[in-house]
Amino acid sequence: RVMPMTTSIITQKMIAQALKELMNQKTFQKISVSDIMKQCDMRRQTFYYHFQDKYELLAWIYQSDTKEQIADFLDYERWDTILYQLFHYFYHHQIFYKNALSVTEQNDFGDYLFHELHGLFIYVIKDLSHPPTSDQLDYQATFFAHGFVGMTKDWLLKGCPTSPEVMRDVVYGLLDEQLKISSHESEEQQ
Amino acid sequence: RVMPMTTSIITQKMIAQALKELMNQKTFQKISVSDIMKQCDMRRQTFYYHFQDKYELLAWIYQSDTKEQIADFLDYERWDTILYQLFHYFYHHQIFYKNALSVTEQNDFGDYLFHELHGLFIYVIKDLSHPPTSDQLDYQATFFAHGFVGMTKDWLLKGCPTSPEVMRDVVYGLLDEQLKISSHESEEQQ
Repeated sequence: RVMPMTTSIITQKMIAQALKELMNQKTFQKISVSDIMKQCDMRRQTFYYHFQDKYELLAWIYQSDTKEQIADFLDYERWDTILYQLFHYFYHHQIFYKNALSVTEQNDFGDYLFHELHGLFIYVIKDLSHPPTSDQLDYQATFFAHGFVGMTKDWLLKGCPTSPEVMRDVVYGLLDEQLKISSHESEEQQ
Repeated sequence: RVMPMTTSIITQKMIAQALKELMNQKTFQKISVSDIMKQCDMRRQTFYYHFQDKYELLAWIYQSDTKEQIADFLDYERWDTILYQLFHYFYHHQIFYKNALSVTEQNDFGDYLFHELHGLFIYVIKDLSHPPTSDQLDYQATFFAHGFVGMTKDWLLKGCPTSPEVMRDVVYGLLDEQLKISSHESEEQQ
């Protein structure tokens, strides 16, 4: 599963890291492309080989972060472990994400997180011993994804007053046993 | 519990009904205060005794509809019955609500629905035999409220392809037994 990183992806990651560092100090609105490229010590023009503007960069971060925290683990981790890692990740990058949540002009962070969580729950619910019909499956995944996105945003905006462990357990305790034990057993049969 | 309706509330309800009727035929954007007052056969000036503009009227409808469908039943109905009634209500007013969801300039319908559903789930979860701590309670209610708001919006925008019964059961089946049977037993002890 380990893919070799191309030079292009490494450059994108370095530019992304620079924006993250700056957003720990000031708001996205106050950061320019020049600031970002100065932070990672690259030529300003290099930015535009990879991104159209700083909004596209922010969307790229949302997409790669949420994908790396969710989709990349789908095949070999239990869903409650994935959620725990996700809360843990946000907890340790809370200044960046709290700052990012205030950017509402373009690219809503919640939309990217929703997309990945929807995929996670489709995966989890499909594997239940009594899986639902396909239209029910979609609404169930929609319900859980909206629930987690809303709860996560609320938690980040409040400055993460509760631990990632508590955040994971908060919902887990209210779910049916079949959903708690779902850990992609179908794989073992393959 | 039955409160006498004042003349003022009756007038507000008539104006609200007029807007609802018009929104079954055309978009909110194309409806003027004059159109609304013509529809209910009242003087245009009467509108401004009650509402500042048509946005305030729309917010008033959101607030009174969601409150009437949720908060007013809290004391004597099971929560799954309340949810069923809510889906039923939206189903029978789907043209209005689908239309209303496209109004994003001011007063998001989702915010009003969220507020009422959050209140509903605080009520339900507090009554469990092992109630959570107060910060967990708030996150749990936030999770369920966001889940239902997101699912309901999605359902309305798709033109309600599934029945209100299925919508209620879609989530119910995935919940823990303690949550399914919660029906405010505490009241009986009073």
